[in-house]
Amino acid sequence: MILYKNDIEKLRNLIASHTKVFLLLDENTDKYCLHLINDFDFQNAVKIIIPSGEQNKNIETVQYIWTKLVENHADRKSLLINIGGGMVTDIGGFAASCYQRGIDFINIPTSLLGMIDAAVGGKTGIDFQGLKNQIGVFSQPSAVVVLFEFLETLPKRELLSGLAEIIKYGFIVDKYFLDAKLSYPSYPFYPIEPKYIEKAIEVKDEITCQDATEHGRRKILNFGHTIGHALETYLIENHEEIRHGEGVAMGMLSALYLSEKYCGLNHKWTLFYKELYAKTFNRFDLRGIPVDALLEIMRHDKKNEGGDIRFVLVEDIGKPVYDVVVKPEDIIDSINYLIDYLNDANYWGK
Amino acid sequence: MILYKNDIEKLRNLIASHTKVFLLLDENTDKYCLHLINDFDFQNAVKIIIPSGEQNKNIETVQYIWTKLVENHADRKSLLINIGGGMVTDIGGFAASCYQRGIDFINIPTSLLGMIDAAVGGKTGIDFQGLKNQIGVFSQPSAVVVLFEFLETLPKRELLSGLAEIIKYGFIVDKYFLDAKLSYPSYPFYPIEPKYIEKAIEVKDEITCQDATEHGRRKILNFGHTIGHALETYLIENHEEIRHGEGVAMGMLSALYLSEKYCGLNHKWTLFYKELYAKTFNRFDLRGIPVDALLEIMRHDKKNEGGDIRFVLVEDIGKPVYDVVVKPEDIIDSINYLIDYLNDANYWGK
Repeated sequence: MILYKNDIEKLRNLIASHTKVFLLLDENTDKYCLHLINDFDFQNAVKIIIPSGEQNKNIETVQYIWTKLVENHADRKSLLINIGGGMVTDIGGFAASCYQRGIDFINIPTSLLGMIDAAVGGKTGIDFQGLKNQIGVFSQPSAVVVLFEFLETLPKRELLSGLAEIIKYGFIVDKYFLDAKLSYPSYPFYPIEPKYIEKAIEVKDEITCQDATEHGRRKILNFGHTIGHALETYLIENHEEIRHGEGVAMGMLSALYLSEKYCGLNHKWTLFYKELYAKTFNRFDLRGIPVDALLEIMRHDKKNEGGDIRFVLVEDIGKPVYDVVVKPEDIIDSINYLIDYLNDANYWGK
Repeated sequence: MILYKNDIEKLRNLIASHTKVFLLLDENTDKYCLHLINDFDFQNAVKIIIPSGEQNKNIETVQYIWTKLVENHADRKSLLINIGGGMVTDIGGFAASCYQRGIDFINIPTSLLGMIDAAVGGKTGIDFQGLKNQIGVFSQPSAVVVLFEFLETLPKRELLSGLAEIIKYGFIVDKYFLDAKLSYPSYPFYPIEPKYIEKAIEVKDEITCQDATEHGRRKILNFGHTIGHALETYLIENHEEIRHGEGVAMGMLSALYLSEKYCGLNHKWTLFYKELYAKTFNRFDLRGIPVDALLEIMRHDKKNEGGDIRFVLVEDIGKPVYDVVVKPEDIIDSINYLIDYLNDANYWGK
């Protein structure tokens, strides 16, 4: 159930049907976001505050949440409300789904990425042994509450990270999404037109309801993610800052390169995306990145079976194909194509 | 899917449909049980061996299993086969259900209790903060393989622990089960007639399929468990040896006492059970056990909502009622009734 600002009464009723309410926040959302939803009557709720940052999306933080639930006598009819970006909704959804074999949870995403991606669709999880979302369950939130006000609290890089996932829908579902852009610091009301967000949520909700456990069509949502995830994982391990969407934005260029080679995608879309990327996203210097290490991370990608590395590619705009086994040498080519692009003076000037 | 010895071909096909096979064993089942199933073609499987004992059914052991899966490149089509008692099938089911958001698992229970209880029904979990099965998920095994040969490997206390759960079905489902008994060291072939085990599995499978997430009728399976669990938890915390079924056997007497008081159960059944218990189960000396500590453990029982302590009781044989809120003073009475019984020379002699 997706709820918007107008549905606050529904949300209140949902909350009232539980014995006890817990709010999961990270240090940032406690400071910057909670006061924006004062009118939600959270006075009696128990706050659980966890440290911010993907590096804390781990089993230790989950154990901290479980301990707080035990200490405060959470029972099976208790409710956990996750207020934060993807890190908070991922870990909170997982903690709730395993506490006493599953209590209800609600996601209130505070980031653009959270709204259109992490909070919707029932994927929960934590990182383990350096692998993203290696541990988790599929478990649907009782509701996702989307409040555009939060967009105003976000720094530009956070917004760009979400925008990359919206652009992704342009390639795999409908070119409508390719027109989405940021108007920072602010579009008339919000830095991005809400219609793109609402439509992206609708698409994600539809795809993920059809295929809750990712055995089929849901896989298309991983477009740009195979290399994107690997870059994200590698750079975080090496203490460089990168957002999830930034990895995806780069991964999509490699995926388009491979789509030409494996699926006959028209080269014009790769050129189109190079222009879009340069106008929109951040430049990373990936020269010298060890491609072998990236491949090794990809081999652990959950989408794979039996040792192959599988990609989502596109034959055309809105025509994705999944489970495409790509040869390691082609993956390396596609990464080098990306590195060259990011280093190409034609797009970026000196 | 419940498989017996005759279904080995089905099992082989199921295993063959996976990319990689992992065997989860504890130190005991590795030593005493694995060689009994040599004909299952497990040569290519990767063994994961965990320490035996309920005290190891914790998050650290789960992390060890996950680490082994990662190190051996388990993918989403991998299979985890749990070979052991309830501890192994509970923790293995949980580990599998959370690995990459869920891989398939098969349970091969090696204890009587495992066959009729833990391995069937899709409850997985670990203990946390001293609370039994506080963390877990509902997740059905792809198959449960029941092999009566394992019964011959079990010490008498293990068999009694399972027998208690069979007797439980006598009170909540059908008095047929009240005739089950051990013939130790051995009935013609096994120490207990297989017909009771098969029927108990059938009943449990039916009840748990009707109500997978325990919102209704499945709760009746907790007969004897409210006080039984509390005793088990308390005694383990205080380093005294007790089996799950031993706690349940004692908890059932308290539950019968409360059933008389709350549900008008005929006193003759309590007397009947006292005779049965003295002939069958072990005597525990519970004098001096702190009843307050037991109540505190019960307050954390997952069956409760909003602070009440709820019981499964019986109006008559085969007529269970669940969610009966019992007053703390009556719970204390029922525990004292149990303590007095265990100390009563009429039943036990000096």
